[in-house]
Amino acid sequence: MKKIYMDNAGTTQIDPRVLREMMPYLKEKYGNASSIHSFGVEARTALDKSRKIVSKLLNCDTNEIIFTGSGTECNNLAIKGAVFNSMKGMFSKKKKHIITSSIEHHCVSDTVKWLGKMGHDVTFLPVDKDGLVDPEDVRKAIKKETLIVSVMMANNEIGTIEPIKEIGKICREKGIYFHSDAVQAFGKVPVDVKDLNVDMLTISGHKIYGPKGVAALYVKRGTKLDPLLHGGGHEFGVRSSTENIAGIVGLAKAAELIVKSMKTEVPKLTKMRDKLIKNILEVKNSRLNGHPTKRLCNNANFSFRFIEGEALNILLDEMGIAASTGSACSSTTLEPSHVLLATGLKHGEAHGSLRLTLGRFNTESDVDFVSKAIPKAVKKLRGISPFKKDW
Amino acid sequence: MKKIYMDNAGTTQIDPRVLREMMPYLKEKYGNASSIHSFGVEARTALDKSRKIVSKLLNCDTNEIIFTGSGTECNNLAIKGAVFNSMKGMFSKKKKHIITSSIEHHCVSDTVKWLGKMGHDVTFLPVDKDGLVDPEDVRKAIKKETLIVSVMMANNEIGTIEPIKEIGKICREKGIYFHSDAVQAFGKVPVDVKDLNVDMLTISGHKIYGPKGVAALYVKRGTKLDPLLHGGGHEFGVRSSTENIAGIVGLAKAAELIVKSMKTEVPKLTKMRDKLIKNILEVKNSRLNGHPTKRLCNNANFSFRFIEGEALNILLDEMGIAASTGSACSSTTLEPSHVLLATGLKHGEAHGSLRLTLGRFNTESDVDFVSKAIPKAVKKLRGISPFKKDW
Repeated sequence: MKKIYMDNAGTTQIDPRVLREMMPYLKEKYGNASSIHSFGVEARTALDKSRKIVSKLLNCDTNEIIFTGSGTECNNLAIKGAVFNSMKGMFSKKKKHIITSSIEHHCVSDTVKWLGKMGHDVTFLPVDKDGLVDPEDVRKAIKKETLIVSVMMANNEIGTIEPIKEIGKICREKGIYFHSDAVQAFGKVPVDVKDLNVDMLTISGHKIYGPKGVAALYVKRGTKLDPLLHGGGHEFGVRSSTENIAGIVGLAKAAELIVKSMKTEVPKLTKMRDKLIKNILEVKNSRLNGHPTKRLCNNANFSFRFIEGEALNILLDEMGIAASTGSACSSTTLEPSHVLLATGLKHGEAHGSLRLTLGRFNTESDVDFVSKAIPKAVKKLRGISPFKKDW
Repeated sequence: MKKIYMDNAGTTQIDPRVLREMMPYLKEKYGNASSIHSFGVEARTALDKSRKIVSKLLNCDTNEIIFTGSGTECNNLAIKGAVFNSMKGMFSKKKKHIITSSIEHHCVSDTVKWLGKMGHDVTFLPVDKDGLVDPEDVRKAIKKETLIVSVMMANNEIGTIEPIKEIGKICREKGIYFHSDAVQAFGKVPVDVKDLNVDMLTISGHKIYGPKGVAALYVKRGTKLDPLLHGGGHEFGVRSSTENIAGIVGLAKAAELIVKSMKTEVPKLTKMRDKLIKNILEVKNSRLNGHPTKRLCNNANFSFRFIEGEALNILLDEMGIAASTGSACSSTTLEPSHVLLATGLKHGEAHGSLRLTLGRFNTESDVDFVSKAIPKAVKKLRGISPFKKDW
């Protein structure tokens, strides 16, 4: 059976060009980048080159790029690192205030919640029905103790693109750190850290046709972070661990490829996405979640009344289509999406959601196949649904 | 020029059998292990299988294995995770006491120092001239507020094997957590977490002919840790991040191979190590650092008077030999080794050290070549040394 993968927000296939770049570092170039011998120099050279590539793509200096093991780690480091650094001791009674949105990925929201549990003061900003944060809400939430604001650049479930530049401007005015999780946005939306007014920004390898287990955090010079991982002093002392050279080389190559191809790929994905949306919305009692225009070029997120998203996904999988109900991370729990709930959907509607996220390796014929399969699948499930049958 | 790699404590070449196992997960099996579709199931199956392999090798249950991004992360998680969990709020004035040795890898010692800086109470235990921790010193250091003891299983610089089982027994009696960094020991010394009386234990991929960027922490059931990385709730809620399946599969395969081959590899490495030690100690004014018998089968660490270890390593590199002065992490700093200083060496002696660490791919002829090269290199450097020339 032909398989169609439309879960590219969950993870992506490694581009063969990326893997080719990685292979020497999985084979003969196995040195530790901290060693002074030739094997070490070889690894260090690859590390430096990768850092140069990524920093150039984000428009920053090389020593403003910190490689880590995941987007989750970058987001935890940005927020906890800033908070720990500001505390000057755990028993100082110096409570900090942290602001974030109510539709962040769990790796931001759970980090902030944990800091809240530990005694800090936290604010979760609301979003409108399309998932947009209002920059004025950020301004109003800021107080004397506010240390950091973290708002994602584009949402992983509904694809809504947030007004990062405007939020960043407000944080700059107020002298507050601003971090943005750009894991989903990078490579689909232009990301220039200077233009965006961010102090920290996260990108991840496996969302851009690179490997899993590697990511990068932009940290503006002067931003004070305590490490989450103490040790040998790698990554300018901010993130110790023997550098995962193969992974870092892969991340850099993947980043380079996706930025270079944005001009052609973004219009192609947008066209496929719009065709998908048009076709799927012909299903009765369906709706598009997220913003109609301010959305990622590859994201289509629907709700279908009277059915369960999980059942729909399982049925689609049997038909050879890999989709998702929401974020991959939460797909094994039975909780409805906190993102859809924040946009005002009721529990039942939030449960009936389907996320299709296109990628580099999808074709027009994939879109056609999926456009036909979904109405069939929805019909089948509604046929056995206990809800009222007025569709 | 033929190159001889004798820095296997720094990092190791990936075994081709490990890489072969990883490749499908870098190519067609690219699913996110949290996704419910077939790509996700495929990844989850590989993850579960890897966990089963590692848990069996360490003699624990599958849900006692936490995969992370590095040995450094495991060690940070074990210690900080336990401390954070015990605090119940950052402003609770519940100071904890942490005990460790003075020869730990920086990822343990700097973690403990940071907790000290943050207001906790910390103790660094001395070692004897061979680098051994006295279990009785652990017993004496324990007080009412002691939460956790962390002592490495074998030292990364001098290869000394610590009396972990005895220290673990004392911690059990006192009801205190005991963590051991077994990154260097695993695969060279039998590691059975039940037999060793440990509550937590770290192993790492790239030290055992597996990939960089992946490691595992054994966490005994009932051990309470707060995550360092909050997020999607991966790894039983202890370490969030999309699982690095290729890396984890590689770690499991590498662990399986090294444990399976211990019977043949350990005697082979021991024989080569002893030959190396015998040959090198013929150099005048040289000494072996670390314990004469309680040492890793692949570790030989020497001090040569009147010369600098760094210069020696650079010269050896030119002769095609990759060695190290101490740990790879600190090889780019000019600080003398804290491990050698702790064993009582003076600054000058600690600076003149050379670490040779053998591995699976070294041969007898490598040993012969190195045995001839080192006396030559030492002689050459002493010839230009400003110190008194009575060797």
